[in-house]
Amino acid sequence: MRKRTNRKNGSPLRVIPIGGLNEIGKNMTVLEYKDDIIIIDCGMSFPEDEMYGIDIVIPDFAYVVKNKEKVRGVILTHGHEDHIGAIPYLLKQINVPIYGTRLTLGLVENKLKEHGIKGNLNTVAHGDKVQLGVFNAEAIRSTHSVADAICWCIETPVGRVFHTGDFKIDYTPIGGAPMDFARLAELGSKGVQLMLCDSTNATRPGYSMSEQTVGITLENIFRNSEARIIIATFSSNVHRVQRIIDNAVKVGRKVAISGRSMVNVVNIAMELGYLNVPANVLVDINKTKNIPDKELVIITTGSQGEPMSALARMASNDHKAVTIKKGDMVILSSSPVPGNEKTVSNVVNKLFEKGAEVIYSDIADIHVSGHACEEELKLMHSLIKPKFFMPVHGEYRHLKRHAQIAESLGEDPDNIFILENGNVLNVTANKAEILKEEVPSQAVYVDGLGVGDVGNIVLRDRKLLSESGLIIVVAAIDRSSGTICSGPDIISRGFVYVRENENLIEQARNLVANTLNKCCDENIKDWNALKSAVRDDLRSFIYKQTKRSPVILPIFLEV
Amino acid sequence: MRKRTNRKNGSPLRVIPIGGLNEIGKNMTVLEYKDDIIIIDCGMSFPEDEMYGIDIVIPDFAYVVKNKEKVRGVILTHGHEDHIGAIPYLLKQINVPIYGTRLTLGLVENKLKEHGIKGNLNTVAHGDKVQLGVFNAEAIRSTHSVADAICWCIETPVGRVFHTGDFKIDYTPIGGAPMDFARLAELGSKGVQLMLCDSTNATRPGYSMSEQTVGITLENIFRNSEARIIIATFSSNVHRVQRIIDNAVKVGRKVAISGRSMVNVVNIAMELGYLNVPANVLVDINKTKNIPDKELVIITTGSQGEPMSALARMASNDHKAVTIKKGDMVILSSSPVPGNEKTVSNVVNKLFEKGAEVIYSDIADIHVSGHACEEELKLMHSLIKPKFFMPVHGEYRHLKRHAQIAESLGEDPDNIFILENGNVLNVTANKAEILKEEVPSQAVYVDGLGVGDVGNIVLRDRKLLSESGLIIVVAAIDRSSGTICSGPDIISRGFVYVRENENLIEQARNLVANTLNKCCDENIKDWNALKSAVRDDLRSFIYKQTKRSPVILPIFLEV
Repeated sequence: MRKRTNRKNGSPLRVIPIGGLNEIGKNMTVLEYKDDIIIIDCGMSFPEDEMYGIDIVIPDFAYVVKNKEKVRGVILTHGHEDHIGAIPYLLKQINVPIYGTRLTLGLVENKLKEHGIKGNLNTVAHGDKVQLGVFNAEAIRSTHSVADAICWCIETPVGRVFHTGDFKIDYTPIGGAPMDFARLAELGSKGVQLMLCDSTNATRPGYSMSEQTVGITLENIFRNSEARIIIATFSSNVHRVQRIIDNAVKVGRKVAISGRSMVNVVNIAMELGYLNVPANVLVDINKTKNIPDKELVIITTGSQGEPMSALARMASNDHKAVTIKKGDMVILSSSPVPGNEKTVSNVVNKLFEKGAEVIYSDIADIHVSGHACEEELKLMHSLIKPKFFMPVHGEYRHLKRHAQIAESLGEDPDNIFILENGNVLNVTANKAEILKEEVPSQAVYVDGLGVGDVGNIVLRDRKLLSESGLIIVVAAIDRSSGTICSGPDIISRGFVYVRENENLIEQARNLVANTLNKCCDENIKDWNALKSAVRDDLRSFIYKQTKRSPVILPIFLEV
Repeated sequence: MRKRTNRKNGSPLRVIPIGGLNEIGKNMTVLEYKDDIIIIDCGMSFPEDEMYGIDIVIPDFAYVVKNKEKVRGVILTHGHEDHIGAIPYLLKQINVPIYGTRLTLGLVENKLKEHGIKGNLNTVAHGDKVQLGVFNAEAIRSTHSVADAICWCIETPVGRVFHTGDFKIDYTPIGGAPMDFARLAELGSKGVQLMLCDSTNATRPGYSMSEQTVGITLENIFRNSEARIIIATFSSNVHRVQRIIDNAVKVGRKVAISGRSMVNVVNIAMELGYLNVPANVLVDINKTKNIPDKELVIITTGSQGEPMSALARMASNDHKAVTIKKGDMVILSSSPVPGNEKTVSNVVNKLFEKGAEVIYSDIADIHVSGHACEEELKLMHSLIKPKFFMPVHGEYRHLKRHAQIAESLGEDPDNIFILENGNVLNVTANKAEILKEEVPSQAVYVDGLGVGDVGNIVLRDRKLLSESGLIIVVAAIDRSSGTICSGPDIISRGFVYVRENENLIEQARNLVANTLNKCCDENIKDWNALKSAVRDDLRSFIYKQTKRSPVILPIFLEV
């Protein structure tokens, strides 16, 4: 039946990852069939170390903007930033309906509000199907570290495309049912043409632990402590927050919420019924002073040690409502995201120094990952049994390892496709292949209000400036007479502390004056040659004296 | 007996950590008794992320320079950078004899050569005693991730001070005998007044594994691979290098060495007899092209993904002698040092992309730590049974945990002292206490040839420049007539890419021109007021337009 449809249509399905491959974050995939496009997820990522001054990174929307008449909708797998964070930027460029579960859309709405825009948001529930052009997308219940996560199974003219989204296999999730294994198995039996599957934890053997195990550790801590408990976790992990609140209720503690995103998410989750909080349990964070320590739990942001987060401010004695004191019990219910190890240990050290007892991932089982490890991936592959497979969400080593896992299950290596962002996978009923074509998929940098106006040249300048600072040489020159009317002056920033290096700066000034005078004597009229001469002389002088290479900026005014 | 000595002398021993507390690195401790000072270790550390442009960080030598007539010598525990790396900088300021084992001094000598200086280097062997003023220091065989590591037991007028240096307990070390447990037990029985003990792994429960376990993993890989093997590890880990060479010899492979520090250390270790390499095994890295893959092992630097290292250059196709090809087996025999996770995974991803099989710490047991975990620390405490205890080498969380471990063994909490760098621990025969006194112990930044000339102001400038770049406003002004002779010109670096933002820059120029004209009209003669006015106007304009805050630098020339 499917084959016939295809023969009739003849056209291939084009699967285009715009983001999320060879990286962690900014997940976005395009499915295109003739005049119809749908987008799966639209996330952001956080800047790498060398992206100086960049606030966030978003996918390149050029392809979907160019084809905006074709775009039928964005379908979302769950409400994490790396899957929804770029939606406001997309909606500023094209107007397109968004489909997701209630909590996911609650988080999207909150995000749109911050940007002052409205979106066409359409709620789907597990089991719902949405017709978008030729695509018929079905939402299937999944489990992840945020509530209300789904997989999408999309019927296309060339067969079914199954996208796992981010997932883990949790047989005993908190406050929800497990993944819809029956439906997955059914789809697998019917036949799935292509699976796109989360690879984040592909290099980890075994299974991820159930969220329940964290609950047990927390319960033990809550039962045995008389201290004020301050507990940091990801705000989006509503299950974890629920479990903390449940434990607090059990032992008769009040709960206060700290940190903007935690307050936002808790409010949204309560409104939508994802968080169940008995009356009189929540207290205002500013009104906790008179509550005895053993009757209070504070849930806060900052589990990654983010410098401006509520927990980091508590650790630095800089939080309005909470002052850490000897005997406090602080729990970081998280693992450091790679790259955040140092900021986390800074916060941990500061909390210890203030006399708090700190429990973090080095010490106890107070976090579980939200992503499937090797054995869970095997289960997913075994249920879905896709004809073609494309690992997504991960650095190259994760994608590669995921491909090896699929091979170990007997999948044909020729049917496994490791793509790069911007590649096009052409899928027909019989065949899949990566095309030579490249779709724009550069990282787009957001810095303040600017989207994409900071490119590699600007970043290179910031890097150079950050390494050795700069030296400005300024002079006013009468070009007609070849005389220096004012200067040269030497101004530096980030180079050396001038007061302690007056001698060096004075020598540099003399050197530049000599160079300029010589050039004027030789009647050099070429402004650029003059600048080059000054720059070269000063650079070699400075390097000889200091072994440093600051940015040198000669500025000459003609008067 | 000791008490009588003390009564006669009356003076306390002063123990002063200059570096190594509340940080990992730049270990240096001063022992001072009346007119005698000895220094234990003199290490460097690597810059934190926010130390823009800093090459290395060294301890503050102010206290020992001020008291240089008292300094009898530097005694070294082992040859790692964080224990010897600052010696050249110390010797440039004071002339003092250095004591260490042969390999340690071999590494020091190599380091001094790079700085073009000579040192008074004195070799000690395990069991040797050195008289330095009132201090009698005994070298005791230890085990660590570099060969020839020792503990020091120092007889002082107030009793014995025992410094573990960095250590792990390895009952089966490679190419050496285990720690001298008998001597440790003997000293413990005789009585140790104060122990300073490595805390790096205090938060890790259990035991560190023996270096032998790595050997077994490597042997399995070597036996079962037909590929060219490229293996990266710390150059100072001579035992690991020996084990790699042993395995190569067993399976009939030649060995080539890549990376400057690896070549240096291998040469030093061979010369001094710490590395045993049969004839005809080593080959020049530039002459490996004709050696079949299965007959070659390349040992290289770069196990931390350092961007300029040999392995990183191989991964980027930028190595003169080695081009990674499909089928190569690359082993990173190390764990990422906290903060290096990203650089390591970048290199791993690039190697995978080139078709290499990569084995790293996520995948196999190819590294063991060189630092004692909780149970090993307990053994050390149980042998030495110190009266007073001061945890050293670690962040606050490590020191604190180490203190808790000591308490759990029955040590009196009042006899445990967690110091900060610059604190003074006063020790007599009966008592120890932290004084109110503070000794200079700031981190000293080395940037190029400059030592200590980059301070917080310069770093703050580099940080600001790195975040949003800078805008320079320049004009030549005739102050007498109040007219602008040239400019204003706007020059920016690291702010926005000017060609694409000509409009913004032009608006800024007009704004500045207006401000300047207004000021000139109002006859403002105050240069600083003029600069402030321009800076303020431009700052709020730029922020409103871009939500960014570049450094704004008005430069006005008087003509």
